[in-house]
Amino acid sequence: MDKDDYKRQLHGLQIGLAALQRQLIAQERRLLVIFEGRDAAGKDGVIKRIVEHQSPRETRVVALGKPTERDRSSWYFQRWVQHLPAGGEFVLFNRSWYNRAGVEQVMGYCSQTEYARFLTDVAPFERLLTDEGIIVLKYYLDISRPEQAARLEDRRINPLKQWKISPVDAVALEKFDAYTEARDAMLAATGDAIPWRVVRADSKHHARLNVIRDILASVPSEGLPEPIDPADPAVLRLWNPGDRPEDFLAS
Amino acid sequence: MDKDDYKRQLHGLQIGLAALQRQLIAQERRLLVIFEGRDAAGKDGVIKRIVEHQSPRETRVVALGKPTERDRSSWYFQRWVQHLPAGGEFVLFNRSWYNRAGVEQVMGYCSQTEYARFLTDVAPFERLLTDEGIIVLKYYLDISRPEQAARLEDRRINPLKQWKISPVDAVALEKFDAYTEARDAMLAATGDAIPWRVVRADSKHHARLNVIRDILASVPSEGLPEPIDPADPAVLRLWNPGDRPEDFLAS
Amino acid sequence: MDKDDYKRQLHGLQIGLAALQRQLIAQERRLLVIFEGRDAAGKDGVIKRIVEHQSPRETRVVALGKPTERDRSSWYFQRWVQHLPAGGEFVLFNRSWYNRAGVEQVMGYCSQTEYARFLTDVAPFERLLTDEGIIVLKYYLDISRPEQAARLEDRRINPLKQWKISPVDAVALEKFDAYTEARDAMLAATGDAIPWRVVRADSKHHARLNVIRDILASVPSEGLPEPIDPADPAVLRLWNPGDRPEDFLAS
Amino acid sequence: MDKDDYKRQLHGLQIGLAALQRQLIAQERRLLVIFEGRDAAGKDGVIKRIVEHQSPRETRVVALGKPTERDRSSWYFQRWVQHLPAGGEFVLFNRSWYNRAGVEQVMGYCSQTEYARFLTDVAPFERLLTDEGIIVLKYYLDISRPEQAARLEDRRINPLKQWKISPVDAVALEKFDAYTEARDAMLAATGDAIPWRVVRADSKHHARLNVIRDILASVPSEGLPEPIDPADPAVLRLWNPGDRPEDFLAS
Repeated sequence: MDKDDYKRQLHGLQIGLAALQRQLIAQERRLLVIFEGRDAAGKDGVIKRIVEHQSPRETRVVALGKPTERDRSSWYFQRWVQHLPAGGEFVLFNRSWYNRAGVEQVMGYCSQTEYARFLTDVAPFERLLTDEGIIVLKYYLDISRPEQAARLEDRRINPLKQWKISPVDAVALEKFDAYTEARDAMLAATGDAIPWRVVRADSKHHARLNVIRDILASVPSEGLPEPIDPADPAVLRLWNPGDRPEDFLAS
Repeated sequence: MDKDDYKRQLHGLQIGLAALQRQLIAQERRLLVIFEGRDAAGKDGVIKRIVEHQSPRETRVVALGKPTERDRSSWYFQRWVQHLPAGGEFVLFNRSWYNRAGVEQVMGYCSQTEYARFLTDVAPFERLLTDEGIIVLKYYLDISRPEQAARLEDRRINPLKQWKISPVDAVALEKFDAYTEARDAMLAATGDAIPWRVVRADSKHHARLNVIRDILASVPSEGLPEPIDPADPAVLRLWNPGDRPEDFLAS
Repeated sequence: MDKDDYKRQLHGLQIGLAALQRQLIAQERRLLVIFEGRDAAGKDGVIKRIVEHQSPRETRVVALGKPTERDRSSWYFQRWVQHLPAGGEFVLFNRSWYNRAGVEQVMGYCSQTEYARFLTDVAPFERLLTDEGIIVLKYYLDISRPEQAARLEDRRINPLKQWKISPVDAVALEKFDAYTEARDAMLAATGDAIPWRVVRADSKHHARLNVIRDILASVPSEGLPEPIDPADPAVLRLWNPGDRPEDFLAS
Repeated sequence: MDKDDYKRQLHGLQIGLAALQRQLIAQERRLLVIFEGRDAAGKDGVIKRIVEHQSPRETRVVALGKPTERDRSSWYFQRWVQHLPAGGEFVLFNRSWYNRAGVEQVMGYCSQTEYARFLTDVAPFERLLTDEGIIVLKYYLDISRPEQAARLEDRRINPLKQWKISPVDAVALEKFDAYTEARDAMLAATGDAIPWRVVRADSKHHARLNVIRDILASVPSEGLPEPIDPADPAVLRLWNPGDRPEDFLAS
């Protein structure tokens, strides 16, 4: 796929997203899309393409900073709850409550008890949201070790990506295997209420197109301008409890 | 019990509450007490005596108005979640998410589907809170028909209680039986995660003393100044799923 | 004035407050009452009597904790702005932005530049509120050194007032003169947009009655049940820029 | 200027913005940039290019919906105050409190008294912000009648811009002259505390480059990678109280 081809496809899919948003607004439906993945997996990039032509009033990207002291002594899910979509809204979470099963667990920011409780509590919590008709899609963008190394190096030298550098990034590569373990445990334990949608993300262009295609295919909608093809199963896969990481994921 | 006796007992219990609060703060614990009951059941009065000598900084009384249009299109529990106690805080809800099983159901402010979903969702929701160590106590203040009639009449003529009069009150008596039915269904269906504590409230003084006594007995605490007697089982009762309303409640 | 006399008068004034609130609600007016004064000056006590029979839905008492790091890097007035009264609301501030001219200045929590800027900025800020029709009343409760000493001692030994003890209180007496200086500078410099109402508060009962009487006399209202006498000028005084502290205030 | 030239220049300026942001964060400074202008003047487009490579955590775009009933009975500036930048933050307002001098005045959404009060209150309000060191830049993007007509027509037929269509847009052209009058009155009356920066915006590319160039030149900063040229005075002009609209603005 060359650049022109990518742009043409992206343009078509963005028209689909615009139609989807009109529907959400007209029908007062609520859509929450959660993005997880290692540092530099491409979360910012895919979110940017999704919201590019969406109505800013009904679209929100939520990327919470590190919790305050008050947050830390409050109900764990509380600081995200206030950002859930109201009727007609499309909300994208750039990282989410799954921090606890990723960076917090790997870096030791939470206790093992908190980690274990999260793994058992997240499904009942998410079920409360979907029970009420909130549409929730969870994407895990998966990249390989060499790709992550190359992207983190690019950050270091690209003058427009300086802000992305953080002390936590510094250890992303160093702790690659610990993050792999955490990823596998998270995918295995937390898909009960809402399945994980795992995306091969070493190719940014393919990942972006596939995620958007999958959103359009996954939100039940009527009257979209044209039928949407399901994303390529070789690069996007709905995760089942019994799935083996080695069959699909990078390691 | 004469007035002096009431005052003396109340004073002693408030000293216990002050000790309890010091403990909550010192140990960063969180306490949420929910009050439900018919109009004029005495919710305001008992809350006032509880918070009278508490530290305003760590104590919050939450009485939400009717939901805005945005609230109505948001996750049902959302507008209460933001008021949950953080570490060291003591929060009192004057009515709560149980509106859906009371006034909303009786007055037709929610659909039958929303009502049914609430009855099944409230236990998993509350379990998420208690799992994390938030202490939650739920009191239902129960008054009889003649007592409610007398109190509503007092509101009508007492110049200090004018603000309590609302159009919904007007139908409280008229729909007494419908509220009884809703009460019985709520007590039977929603005590799974956190048991209901049902209080006979025709006597204001007894009700207030018993609720405070029960709070002090129910919050696990060490080093309280003196042992606290459990509330009188003839006027306060922990509700079990199989309990029969006619054995204890007014009708 | 004996206790029964106090109670009778208070009851009458609370009926006046109830009438005032009905008016505020009916006419969608906004009332903000600010209380300042040394530790133990009686702010909590007078606020409690004012709100005792007010409608909780339209009445809010705001006592902010110490500013967070984010607060400290935000516009100084910002954290109070979100608590200003909306239409029909009656809001009471237990301490306010005047912290900067009191505790912050005395304890060195702000720089001299921040203090000086506050003294010049507060009048334009308050004028923006009153220009829009928000009614703002500012009370300074003034107590003498012996009275403050007696009350702080009472706190130390009264089991119901333990929560009021704070490390800052500890130095209230020690820094009595510095607080006197700060008080005089504040009264002289910050009454341009909204005059200070200074109340002799060594007698709690008199102070409470006089403040409520003054609120009722100061809020322009029609149809209040009976004419309200102005507060006793010997104990309550509207502060003019040229007033000399030694003529009225404790030192 | 051809498209490649535009892209090259934009890239260079975005590197400047990245450097500016690093400085803001390192020095805990606060930057607020306000964009005003007719419908389709290009506010969304310029904001998008500014934030494209900024750190999402320290950058916020604020585009408030129409005021709720509660907003309408609150202090006019209140709903924007909560979005002001804290230390290190860069906030962009897509429309602002100037709604009152634009759409509200033209469409009759506010009274003449409210309009007049806004014109006199806005300078003291803004001075409170700048006094405290918040950097505030106000841009008015000015387009001509034919350009607006062309852009609104494009919206109507472009499938990616459907969400921009609103009932208010429909009358933008029809009321072009009323908006011109309101614009001239606003520029003449509200530049006292913070001057207006008026930009010729019929050429989107030029407008975007000039605004970014002007931001970089206007925020006092040290150590930016290279000297920044001031924006072209033929297309960007600091508005002085005595300036005549016919000398610079479209009509």
